[in-house]
Amino acid sequence: MSHLSLHLPSTPTTSLSLSLSLSLSLSLSSMEASWEASVTDSINTIYLLFSAYLVFVMQLGFAMLCAGSVRAKNAMNIMLTNVVDAVVGSISYYLFGFAFAFGDGSSSNPFIGTEFFALKDIPNSSYDYSYFLYQWAFAIAVSGITSGSIAERTQFSAYLVFSFFLTGFVYPVVVHWVWSSSGWLSPSSTSLIFSSGAIDFAGSGVVHLVGGIAGLWGSLIEGPRVGRFDAFGKPVPMRGHNATLVVLGTFLLWFGWFGFNPGSFDKILVAYPDTSNQGNWTGVGRTAVTTALAGSTAGLVTLFGRRLLVGHWDALDVCNGLLGGFVAITSGCAVVEPWAAIVCGFFSAWVLIGLNILALKLKFDDPLEATQLHGGCGAWGLLFTGLFAKEEFIVQAYNSGETGVVRPYGLLLGGGWGLLGAQVIEVLVIVGWVSITMGPLFYALHRLEILRISVDEEVAGLDISSHGGYAYTAHPEDTPRYYADYMRLQNQ
Amino acid sequence: MSHLSLHLPSTPTTSLSLSLSLSLSLSLSSMEASWEASVTDSINTIYLLFSAYLVFVMQLGFAMLCAGSVRAKNAMNIMLTNVVDAVVGSISYYLFGFAFAFGDGSSSNPFIGTEFFALKDIPNSSYDYSYFLYQWAFAIAVSGITSGSIAERTQFSAYLVFSFFLTGFVYPVVVHWVWSSSGWLSPSSTSLIFSSGAIDFAGSGVVHLVGGIAGLWGSLIEGPRVGRFDAFGKPVPMRGHNATLVVLGTFLLWFGWFGFNPGSFDKILVAYPDTSNQGNWTGVGRTAVTTALAGSTAGLVTLFGRRLLVGHWDALDVCNGLLGGFVAITSGCAVVEPWAAIVCGFFSAWVLIGLNILALKLKFDDPLEATQLHGGCGAWGLLFTGLFAKEEFIVQAYNSGETGVVRPYGLLLGGGWGLLGAQVIEVLVIVGWVSITMGPLFYALHRLEILRISVDEEVAGLDISSHGGYAYTAHPEDTPRYYADYMRLQNQ
Amino acid sequence: MSHLSLHLPSTPTTSLSLSLSLSLSLSLSSMEASWEASVTDSINTIYLLFSAYLVFVMQLGFAMLCAGSVRAKNAMNIMLTNVVDAVVGSISYYLFGFAFAFGDGSSSNPFIGTEFFALKDIPNSSYDYSYFLYQWAFAIAVSGITSGSIAERTQFSAYLVFSFFLTGFVYPVVVHWVWSSSGWLSPSSTSLIFSSGAIDFAGSGVVHLVGGIAGLWGSLIEGPRVGRFDAFGKPVPMRGHNATLVVLGTFLLWFGWFGFNPGSFDKILVAYPDTSNQGNWTGVGRTAVTTALAGSTAGLVTLFGRRLLVGHWDALDVCNGLLGGFVAITSGCAVVEPWAAIVCGFFSAWVLIGLNILALKLKFDDPLEATQLHGGCGAWGLLFTGLFAKEEFIVQAYNSGETGVVRPYGLLLGGGWGLLGAQVIEVLVIVGWVSITMGPLFYALHRLEILRISVDEEVAGLDISSHGGYAYTAHPEDTPRYYADYMRLQNQ
Repeated sequence: MSHLSLHLPSTPTTSLSLSLSLSLSLSLSSMEASWEASVTDSINTIYLLFSAYLVFVMQLGFAMLCAGSVRAKNAMNIMLTNVVDAVVGSISYYLFGFAFAFGDGSSSNPFIGTEFFALKDIPNSSYDYSYFLYQWAFAIAVSGITSGSIAERTQFSAYLVFSFFLTGFVYPVVVHWVWSSSGWLSPSSTSLIFSSGAIDFAGSGVVHLVGGIAGLWGSLIEGPRVGRFDAFGKPVPMRGHNATLVVLGTFLLWFGWFGFNPGSFDKILVAYPDTSNQGNWTGVGRTAVTTALAGSTAGLVTLFGRRLLVGHWDALDVCNGLLGGFVAITSGCAVVEPWAAIVCGFFSAWVLIGLNILALKLKFDDPLEATQLHGGCGAWGLLFTGLFAKEEFIVQAYNSGETGVVRPYGLLLGGGWGLLGAQVIEVLVIVGWVSITMGPLFYALHRLEILRISVDEEVAGLDISSHGGYAYTAHPEDTPRYYADYMRLQNQ
Repeated sequence: MSHLSLHLPSTPTTSLSLSLSLSLSLSLSSMEASWEASVTDSINTIYLLFSAYLVFVMQLGFAMLCAGSVRAKNAMNIMLTNVVDAVVGSISYYLFGFAFAFGDGSSSNPFIGTEFFALKDIPNSSYDYSYFLYQWAFAIAVSGITSGSIAERTQFSAYLVFSFFLTGFVYPVVVHWVWSSSGWLSPSSTSLIFSSGAIDFAGSGVVHLVGGIAGLWGSLIEGPRVGRFDAFGKPVPMRGHNATLVVLGTFLLWFGWFGFNPGSFDKILVAYPDTSNQGNWTGVGRTAVTTALAGSTAGLVTLFGRRLLVGHWDALDVCNGLLGGFVAITSGCAVVEPWAAIVCGFFSAWVLIGLNILALKLKFDDPLEATQLHGGCGAWGLLFTGLFAKEEFIVQAYNSGETGVVRPYGLLLGGGWGLLGAQVIEVLVIVGWVSITMGPLFYALHRLEILRISVDEEVAGLDISSHGGYAYTAHPEDTPRYYADYMRLQNQ
Repeated sequence: MSHLSLHLPSTPTTSLSLSLSLSLSLSLSSMEASWEASVTDSINTIYLLFSAYLVFVMQLGFAMLCAGSVRAKNAMNIMLTNVVDAVVGSISYYLFGFAFAFGDGSSSNPFIGTEFFALKDIPNSSYDYSYFLYQWAFAIAVSGITSGSIAERTQFSAYLVFSFFLTGFVYPVVVHWVWSSSGWLSPSSTSLIFSSGAIDFAGSGVVHLVGGIAGLWGSLIEGPRVGRFDAFGKPVPMRGHNATLVVLGTFLLWFGWFGFNPGSFDKILVAYPDTSNQGNWTGVGRTAVTTALAGSTAGLVTLFGRRLLVGHWDALDVCNGLLGGFVAITSGCAVVEPWAAIVCGFFSAWVLIGLNILALKLKFDDPLEATQLHGGCGAWGLLFTGLFAKEEFIVQAYNSGETGVVRPYGLLLGGGWGLLGAQVIEVLVIVGWVSITMGPLFYALHRLEILRISVDEEVAGLDISSHGGYAYTAHPEDTPRYYADYMRLQNQ
């Protein structure tokens, strides 16, 4: 009796304890799950959106760089083209660009995306709005590159046509090949080309080579600016009108590149509860460092290289050298060591210097050197990645935590020919694809006589002939210089 | 005995297990709680502070846009007013602006805040310093809008007076009405007007309409600039002196708008353990997208619209068109679908074009079109929200997770008249409140003859008459142009 | 029997419950640990990297501020020096600057770091790449300050030498003293000087005073620009050529300062499971507020102070006043109340105004006022911290959560002389260290005649003599001004 009295209470209490402790742990862990998903989404959205805002700044950087690099009479025109890149690009990329690039759902194929037109079915489990915005900021940059190549001599209506076509179709298709999980060149694809796939982390090829090759065809078909080469074929310098704008644009592009390259990890924290790879923060930081080092090295080498070649310290060439280094590291930024970034920058400086010399010999006139800079250094960047990519970093950046995967990496680090082969393929297919699409387009515009402006208009300048006035208006009564002139004239 | 021996241990063990497992779970969850609160605060602080920094960039954007849009002789003056906005605004908003706007504690009332003067009792459970900084960045933008309307002809001392009054009192009161939880127009208030409250998410009305109406009165009372209309009342073009600055300012404003609109969620992750609504990351991303699409559409429509009207592709009008689209979407950015943002931008372009035509007819001279752009498109933006706001998004943005709440939404989406009514009320009360406060102020300054500068000073320019010199100094010995002139003169 | 049947099951069940609930809690908490570490690293990396990007923008801000403040004939030169700061600084800071500053491992000593050359052993438990990038952005700013002092008259090769030496050695050593945990002046050191250590949170001394004193020696040894003082020693105004660039640069520097000061917490969330101090979000926000208030107050005081002194509202002086306030608050930004920041800004305005008057009296010519601004206001900032630092905030910022620690704080708040003493020591040692290193360097360059350019080159301008051309190129056929002149000349 006493025993029962002692015992009976114990049993219910026991079973109570069971249910109680279990329910506690379960409810706790379930609440954890949704909480951890929310933290992950919040952190990754902040990271991706603010990176997108930085990439957007590159549009402003291009506008200032281009404006400063052309003659004052065409400043308004080239700035308008940069503004129009952004507004036309926004609409065309929203309507179908993003769909062609990333629309790989049920009916997915390796060549072009087929859903998410006009953001239909966005957001979904793969893509939120922040991802669209980040990709949009990339898309509008491409035609900004090309517009530099055809500056100072192109009809604005022609600009509208090629810009819409390039941003809405030609570029997104390349994105699908290289960056979408179903792309035939993609390193995240299920069937890896050369069991490797091409590594173009932030787009030396996808963005810069595409823009540069488009520019190559545009400027080839249009020919040099009036007076760029004299009767004997000797180049006549045509300095831009404002070096301050060039420096402003270069620094803004550098600033934006910190969103372009480190931001391309898309996520800085991986989804809970994948504990094998908790995130990319070290890779993101290292990517910012390789970017800064490659650009700086290229700038420094250009500074001294040009000093030897032209005999003075040329600020404008240093700016282009910097940008060449950034373009080159953009492909491998996430998968190479900092020391390798310095190698990358060193050679990209000579690639740019060499191509500029070649361009003069061939009487090729690209006012912004966009073909040489984005095309040449972009191609070098892809090859560089095939030579110096580090296995550990490739696994980190592309395997979302799987371990023990053996895949090709940098040839010079003993990673075999697979990766370099894939990189060469990317260079070739981009050159080919952009040539067979943009080449004919520019040629058609040329034959339709809506590509190049008349000689008179070119001499007068695009601003006065097409845009209602000059970028800089001098009101006789309000310019200090006027008083000086005026008084000098009075005193004669 | 064996039974007891077998049994007795079991009972203590049992009770042990009980206490043990319970204490474990409890200590764990308590440590969780403080941890999760810390993560939430860290994430939201990063999100809000960096958004505030972007909004601050708009001050620079305004400075460049205004400088480029005026004549060179007044560039220094208008840039100084933009710098002064920031420094005067910082002090007046710190001393009482923030208090009037958000100081709703014990003695809270629907019309004006009454605590937190000079940041007293900040930080507290509702507001941390990051919130003050974000609101400060908004406050200093308002008088920047107005200063554009009265550019090129206003005494600097008058500027100091109205700027201090507008930032420190007129604007914060409107903020209290619409954005503080105790405001009579607020959608978060306990007693919702029309059981809806006005939805002005980032301030088409609170910021832009306020600044635009203040500018309307200022420029009306001052009258047009000397020579803006000829003897027959025909407008005489007065182009700004530097289009590059206009483009620079426009892009900087676009960049800043990514902090202005998406940042207005204040929090991207809601406080644990509210599991009903874990956060706003999708809303934040969608807001960035609607912002970009509305601006781009407005810019594009303006590009073609002006081409039809004036016969050339006008870069400066595209810039203003873009800004008009941003102003209009600012009210509804968080509660409309991307496709609706395109509708918003389309009409805001025509609102701006139409009001500019009207202004010329009425001989109304606002050098920056601030009245038409911020006032007109701001008002349109409020109405647009009443027409296209989506119920789901309103609940997401304003109900912090409560579900099943039925409240009015966009009229054209079947949400009834409640929201549109509240939006109309906001337009009316802002126009009324700013008119009865800023109108008399500008009139008093006018009667006291401290509002407008003399005709001589206006012709000479504000920079030389009030600021000790021109923005651009030509040293005869260091301008290349000089050599050209000089040699031409020598050779005569 | 029935009793046993009733009883026997209960015992196993009980023990089962024990093991079950325990294993559950344990596995859960272990997974938590790695998860929480990942969240912390992701949040802190985003916070630090984006702050680094903002600090980088200051390089652009300096470039624009300097360009606008010099004569057009030297604009290219000074912008090139700013670009070169970044590229040279990147390489030298990567190779050994960072190592000298933070390389305190096994062989650590209080005077100079000895490991992490060329990022060897980075990342490690103390430093990830993001930390290097943040410190790199600081390092490249220092010689930007100094280049202002020696503007318009220095040989570019001399610039390369001092820039490399300052960024790579002189500056990093000071960083090691004050910011590395093993530094002899550091407030985080194990043996605190005056049991306090110097509090220079973001570097009024480490960055600005170092740059200013280096500039002092450079401009002293070079002497004033040709024509800066007339035959009677009267100063001749030498206005910069473009005030728009000065305002652009000032706002960009303000923007960057939001990364410079609030970013210097390095972490916004501390590592789990330290529950005593969960993070710095309130401190980070307060630091942004004190920064904005100090700068604004200084700008406002300068506006009215200069109005009294020179009789007009001077935009350029307001810009310098603003910057002086930022420089001064940089030391104490994290450890003072907002009201104290206003005190800081008020006095820094007078420090700058006073030193500028003194400089004219002494015929000292620093084209950017860098010595007065960064040196003078930097020293004032260090002393200010010794007077107004609040105990609670010092504990928050420097004790990572330890409580009950009593250490000296602001003298005027009753914190004793310890902190002020340490601040005075920092001022003295920085002035001394920079003087004995940079003074002899500039003197040696002077004696070797590679410091200053020839009078002819100075009159012609550095751009035409050293950099191959002017920053601004006027193409006769494309400047509207030309038409005006041309027609005026025709009509004579």
